[in-house]
Amino acid sequence: MIPQHHLPADIERTSMQIIAKELEERHIRIPRENLAVVKRVIHTTADFEYAETLHFTEDAVQKAIEALHNGATIITDTNMALAGVSKPGLKKLNGEALCFMADPAVAQSAKESGTTRAVAAMHKAAKEYPGAILAVGNAPTALFAIAEEIENGLRPALVIGVPVGFVNVIESKENIFAVCEKHHVPAIVAFGRKGGSTIAAAVCNALIYSAAEMLDPTARGWK
Amino acid sequence: MIPQHHLPADIERTSMQIIAKELEERHIRIPRENLAVVKRVIHTTADFEYAETLHFTEDAVQKAIEALHNGATIITDTNMALAGVSKPGLKKLNGEALCFMADPAVAQSAKESGTTRAVAAMHKAAKEYPGAILAVGNAPTALFAIAEEIENGLRPALVIGVPVGFVNVIESKENIFAVCEKHHVPAIVAFGRKGGSTIAAAVCNALIYSAAEMLDPTARGWK
Repeated sequence: MIPQHHLPADIERTSMQIIAKELEERHIRIPRENLAVVKRVIHTTADFEYAETLHFTEDAVQKAIEALHNGATIITDTNMALAGVSKPGLKKLNGEALCFMADPAVAQSAKESGTTRAVAAMHKAAKEYPGAILAVGNAPTALFAIAEEIENGLRPALVIGVPVGFVNVIESKENIFAVCEKHHVPAIVAFGRKGGSTIAAAVCNALIYSAAEMLDPTARGWK
Repeated sequence: MIPQHHLPADIERTSMQIIAKELEERHIRIPRENLAVVKRVIHTTADFEYAETLHFTEDAVQKAIEALHNGATIITDTNMALAGVSKPGLKKLNGEALCFMADPAVAQSAKESGTTRAVAAMHKAAKEYPGAILAVGNAPTALFAIAEEIENGLRPALVIGVPVGFVNVIESKENIFAVCEKHHVPAIVAFGRKGGSTIAAAVCNALIYSAAEMLDPTARGWK
């Protein structure tokens, strides 16, 4: 009853072929450099809407891959996104991923400044990891905090802005994209309401896989 | 710049009102007992398609809530879904959530039987936690394994079948739903391609919140 002949790696290859075919059928053209990210987000959601909503600043993917090759830390806004970031991938890059949401100092600092833990976590990230990849899949307030930090001089390696929701979400994403463009900070943002922790992790993983495969193009099946 | 006046609890309430309003505008009627689950999945995805694709066996929500009140364990097929299950909610119910994907014995057993870790993890769950809530957001093979176990006599408290993808996914979900209906096992399944770890966690959390609020209807803002 279980189709045993389908190994995970085969399933992924077949899935990516189906996604490529359906993008073509829908006449959706994705710039070559962004294709790995767009396809992985669709692979994670089965939602082709992301082909239209994902926005990239110029050379965002290339710059993110360079940052990963230089050991950039990934900081997520939820433990769920952190759990989704590829551990074998990070290992190949000698990289690490962190989330400060469960940090007692962050909870304390949020309480003291009357803000959210997500905001306090991003200020901590800005202070301790100024050149990190900041991946936000949940909290629009985290994106507003990052925008503020960028206006004040922070230069993260990449901002991934993909929170989901109905209140402040669209505004937070349009704002961060504009701020990143203005200050030449690489950004990958899903416009509109849709997004989430799995999407944040998928964008990270697409970049991690691309970066790792550049280092070792013969590697297969390590994911 | 950060809209500080929006506390997370306010945002959630407003979001749920927007979702209820848009369901009405779309003329989508959800049976009252399923509404909390459907609304939370839409809250997690901003995707109203789930209002059409989520399928419930008879009294699935009521039976799941009873199981949670009786201390049923939740077992997920990914660490990402596990990370998304509400810890404060589980605490209120004195419940626990587990995932066996990183268990070395599961990896060994999968290797020996030439199957996936997801399948081996579900066989372990069936053996050690026969009355659990099984939440599958990733691996269609896990759903096929659960269907096989049910045919062989397993009676989980609930099967949540919401993997996402392009290969074997639709079949695995239609199959588990039919098997659950046949054997009177409660099931909540998202038909079609869409789903994922966040959706599995959202279904668990909707049930956890409902179960916890029944025990303490005056509790607010504890999530």
